[in-house]
Amino acid sequence: MSNAAYPEINSTRLWQRHVDMAKLGATAGGGVHRLALTDLDIEAHMLLNDWAAGCGFTISLDPIGNMFIRREGSDPSLPPVASGSHTDTQPNGGRFDGITGVLTAFEAMETIHEAGIETRHPLETIIWNNEEGPRFIPSCMGSAAYAGVSPLEAMLASEDADGITMGSCVDALKNALPHAGSRALGAPLSAFIEVHIEQGTELEASGNTIGIVTGMQGYRRFSVTVTGEDAHSGTTPRARRKDAFVAATDMARALRAKLVDEEDVLRFTIGRFEVLPGGITVVPGQVNFTIDIRHPEKDTLITLGDQIAPICHELAGPCEVVVDEYSFQDPLEFPGSIRARITAAASRRGYSSQPIFSCAGHDARHISKLCPAGMIFIPCWQGISHNEAERAEPEDIAASSQLIADMLIDLGNET
Amino acid sequence: MSNAAYPEINSTRLWQRHVDMAKLGATAGGGVHRLALTDLDIEAHMLLNDWAAGCGFTISLDPIGNMFIRREGSDPSLPPVASGSHTDTQPNGGRFDGITGVLTAFEAMETIHEAGIETRHPLETIIWNNEEGPRFIPSCMGSAAYAGVSPLEAMLASEDADGITMGSCVDALKNALPHAGSRALGAPLSAFIEVHIEQGTELEASGNTIGIVTGMQGYRRFSVTVTGEDAHSGTTPRARRKDAFVAATDMARALRAKLVDEEDVLRFTIGRFEVLPGGITVVPGQVNFTIDIRHPEKDTLITLGDQIAPICHELAGPCEVVVDEYSFQDPLEFPGSIRARITAAASRRGYSSQPIFSCAGHDARHISKLCPAGMIFIPCWQGISHNEAERAEPEDIAASSQLIADMLIDLGNET
Repeated sequence: MSNAAYPEINSTRLWQRHVDMAKLGATAGGGVHRLALTDLDIEAHMLLNDWAAGCGFTISLDPIGNMFIRREGSDPSLPPVASGSHTDTQPNGGRFDGITGVLTAFEAMETIHEAGIETRHPLETIIWNNEEGPRFIPSCMGSAAYAGVSPLEAMLASEDADGITMGSCVDALKNALPHAGSRALGAPLSAFIEVHIEQGTELEASGNTIGIVTGMQGYRRFSVTVTGEDAHSGTTPRARRKDAFVAATDMARALRAKLVDEEDVLRFTIGRFEVLPGGITVVPGQVNFTIDIRHPEKDTLITLGDQIAPICHELAGPCEVVVDEYSFQDPLEFPGSIRARITAAASRRGYSSQPIFSCAGHDARHISKLCPAGMIFIPCWQGISHNEAERAEPEDIAASSQLIADMLIDLGNET
Repeated sequence: MSNAAYPEINSTRLWQRHVDMAKLGATAGGGVHRLALTDLDIEAHMLLNDWAAGCGFTISLDPIGNMFIRREGSDPSLPPVASGSHTDTQPNGGRFDGITGVLTAFEAMETIHEAGIETRHPLETIIWNNEEGPRFIPSCMGSAAYAGVSPLEAMLASEDADGITMGSCVDALKNALPHAGSRALGAPLSAFIEVHIEQGTELEASGNTIGIVTGMQGYRRFSVTVTGEDAHSGTTPRARRKDAFVAATDMARALRAKLVDEEDVLRFTIGRFEVLPGGITVVPGQVNFTIDIRHPEKDTLITLGDQIAPICHELAGPCEVVVDEYSFQDPLEFPGSIRARITAAASRRGYSSQPIFSCAGHDARHISKLCPAGMIFIPCWQGISHNEAERAEPEDIAASSQLIADMLIDLGNET
């Protein structure tokens, strides 16, 4: 297909922008370490701002620091058609998770701009703030606050390990972009489509280019605090120890044995596990750890997740334990209308595609509460993500950006 | 007993010096956080230097930063009779571990000085550097280097978590005490006696004031590195994970099950356990942990300790593991001559005493390779140590200092 109404995106430029972005936080291992709203992440926002200025696009920021790059429509009163994702990464993360969704959206808008195509709706590239969450808890904070899922004040009060608040970092972002307009949380969108690497192996296995995401698994997240007593490792006999490490590892092992399914669909992860005070010759008096469980079925999440607190209490031994569930998100199904549109667009371009279920959480989860939303997955080498070795191919990235461009034109001209 | 030849120490001054020292690194919980050769620990050295100057004592430093406070003898060519311990603490440690051995020694020397008693041998209060080890590995570094057990260059190259070397910190200590003389490593001592809180409950249980230490348990220390692969917690099925946390907790549990004795004499401790990268939604790709085992019998240390590496390798699962044994110290028996002297001194003063075995390691272990050495324990509330709640009673501290004063006079006048 080569149609004047559907201009071709510039795949070379799109790849070069991935290369440029990967310099902000580049790690020795070939990955990117760019935690939310660090100086590096603010630089990423500024770089996008510069590119936006080159096209005459305007930018605005909302109170949680989400950034909106806007190409005005012929009827500015209509809600924008939007695409985007996030610029932040995991610690020592990859070069594609998040940023590909931002750059494919921006490339689509720039292509439409260069082709001089007018749309009735405004078009927007959105950078949702603090998607990953290792610095500020919870993850997907920007989209959750925008969709009204998480209260703004509590999110701005979130502190990183050094006691720096999310709020002060949002202020720093605003100071770095003094000309940015103000956007209200929850301001209407007419549609939102997010491109993302699959972070799994289905597309790689099938050889298809495009995954049309059907829905997302739900999740529950817990933080567990085990308190015993610091003691001297040489003088304190076993019988007198209140060893928080022993209790916490007993819990971790029992939880792992219980939260398991033969089908290997349930995801059970202990990702953070801090042992304090951490001296070689000190019996640990405290352990703080987190639990992340995910499943496509809500009933399973309830049945299995409800066992976590009882298991922890049962295995506390001489220690005390506090289990706090700080997040519970239901599984989600994306609307058929958006999925059908992605299918049709891929078919017109001759891209091989398939329906696919998302095992990862994404900003589109929250935004689907505000407007028809969907996601496009592209292949991810060996399914490796949240890792420096994360890899996606330039032609797959280009294909997804092309679909976004085509769909922005279609959706942007609907009544 | 009140004999002009054996003057009474000043218990009020001795306690006040504990109070003053506890201000350097005071924690909200009533403890002390004064890691080796931090600014606070250097301040502690400077405070002792000031007190020493008030008595006309001289100070010197050796190449690993051990500090020697000296009262000259009538025959300066004789090797000094010494007492002392350390000024550094564990993270959020207590107000007595180490510093009591330094202050009781200093009080004894000051008492002898004020009484105008001359000794043939020089007398010294020694501050052994970096005894605790949470900042710079290994622990008991200063005494080990002095006794030739650990090579100086390797010790000076030891780095803390921020990449700061022990050597640069020793330089900082020297710069803070520019008038200090130089002392050679391994310079002869004629005897060394260290006062320390028991860090156990035997004296508390028996009601005795003085523990005459018979010997010390031996220990082996290992560092274990488990390497898997960072992965996304939502998308990576169990079958594809290389979860270093899972492997390391399996190892920790199996080691705990194997390294156990009914008598509760063996000490097995995992005190440091770092899970990386530490993101809530990231399957951990690496865990670094330490193992500390201690026992009074060398054979047991060999039999049990030799099982550690095989167990870790057996349970590595899809991960790789490296087990490094970085320290092995034999159990130790102190010479009967020194033990008999402490017993006699306690008896003369009417202090209740008993033989006691040390479950903790101390600097006297290494110094016993150079000269006749021994230790005096005093009661420690509930055996709690390496903890902010650590407590010792002023009258017990005073009794131990009195014994040191009496023994310095006796030993200092021997031929």
